[in-house]
Amino acid sequence: MVDQSRTWTAALVVIGDEILSGRTQDKNVAQLATWLNGEGVRLAEVRIVPDDTSRIVEAVNALRSTHDYLVTTGGIGPTHDDITVDAIAAAFGVSVVIHPEARAILEDYYRDRPGGLNEARLRMARVPDGAELIANPSSGAPGVRMGNVYMFAGVPHIAASMMDGLTGSLEGGRPMVSVTVGARAPESEVADLLRETEAARPGVSIGSYPFFKDGRYGANFVIRSEDGELARETGSELSRRLAEAGFEPVEGGI
Amino acid sequence: MVDQSRTWTAALVVIGDEILSGRTQDKNVAQLATWLNGEGVRLAEVRIVPDDTSRIVEAVNALRSTHDYLVTTGGIGPTHDDITVDAIAAAFGVSVVIHPEARAILEDYYRDRPGGLNEARLRMARVPDGAELIANPSSGAPGVRMGNVYMFAGVPHIAASMMDGLTGSLEGGRPMVSVTVGARAPESEVADLLRETEAARPGVSIGSYPFFKDGRYGANFVIRSEDGELARETGSELSRRLAEAGFEPVEGGI
Repeated sequence: MVDQSRTWTAALVVIGDEILSGRTQDKNVAQLATWLNGEGVRLAEVRIVPDDTSRIVEAVNALRSTHDYLVTTGGIGPTHDDITVDAIAAAFGVSVVIHPEARAILEDYYRDRPGGLNEARLRMARVPDGAELIANPSSGAPGVRMGNVYMFAGVPHIAASMMDGLTGSLEGGRPMVSVTVGARAPESEVADLLRETEAARPGVSIGSYPFFKDGRYGANFVIRSEDGELARETGSELSRRLAEAGFEPVEGGI
Repeated sequence: MVDQSRTWTAALVVIGDEILSGRTQDKNVAQLATWLNGEGVRLAEVRIVPDDTSRIVEAVNALRSTHDYLVTTGGIGPTHDDITVDAIAAAFGVSVVIHPEARAILEDYYRDRPGGLNEARLRMARVPDGAELIANPSSGAPGVRMGNVYMFAGVPHIAASMMDGLTGSLEGGRPMVSVTVGARAPESEVADLLRETEAARPGVSIGSYPFFKDGRYGANFVIRSEDGELARETGSELSRRLAEAGFEPVEGGI
């Protein structure tokens, strides 16, 4: 469902003490950004907040009205620190209910597993009143959608499988097209060239990302535009100008 | 400088289109969290915002007054997309000036390098009026401190070297102590045990992080407290109760 008339945006709230403590390296920001872009939606802001209801509510309410979509990751499991559903219900001012379809999925999933559908597991059938389910092909317990808020699992491969299942179902615009040109050029020697190239092409942004590799300085220049043809033309132009300035460009980056 | 009378907190604003586009995997959240904890400061919130002055100003002003420290990463290089210094100056309502010591550092650093101290490189001596420098042992261009706002480089190893140089200089409280107990236990079978263990010990939080490894389900339980002795006691108690429940605990996690 492509609507090119405007830019569609999403925000992400990562819920997790384990990310803020440094124990766990987040992987959901990058994979969500990549997936959303394919759906024509730009990830515009991320907030990482602790497992604390009031902090989650504050972030969710600040972002769900200012973006087309809000995604949360984490906190939808069976233990006491999984409070996302309660927090989203509080943010919407609704109660928490057992979703009959989620209960049926869990009954089926745990029928032949040790412990069966105990009370902790039944927690994973709780949703804010009025919510729908998001399929989870990985591990039974579904994600939850409440209005424009999508609650995904925190475990990256489970979150990825929930995204997979939603591919093609979001309304969005055009994907952002990125073209990367690398060069063994210190970015500080080509700053003017970059600025001029970007300024001459409205609708194009150029990011400069330095690196130090094999004992030499260099940078990757990332040209981004919703107009793929324009992005590619700008990449070619930048390559030509880098070569003219005496730096060997590398299409696709280094 | 340890002040145990209260909890010291910090927020982080990650500035970077490259993180929000999914192109670059952030590594600064985890390393900053770990470093801050050693300084007795808790990372309490992270926001990732695009290279957009108004969005940076909004995030910085929302967070610098509600936390003891605010750290930014990214956007302090020599190119047109490096706008952090200008945004922080705008947030504080001050002008941008060339810092004489930063200029001297850059003059020295680029004296024998191709291109010398050109205009783009001199951008890296710009600071909000009233700011101080943060030493950069990696690559010359310093970080910047303005009040309680610390501007670090975005490149992770440079950011790390700036943190190293500041070790011991922040005022903070007690580090959070983490004790991890792993078990080949599905978390949904020990949820009650976890909740009870946490509820019985004020000042302790227990996080549950499931995994699927070698074809079996398990979880790591992370016990956190500013009271190290209490964290260790709780870890021993949890191990004992897991074993009683028939799950083999693994000290230190799996």
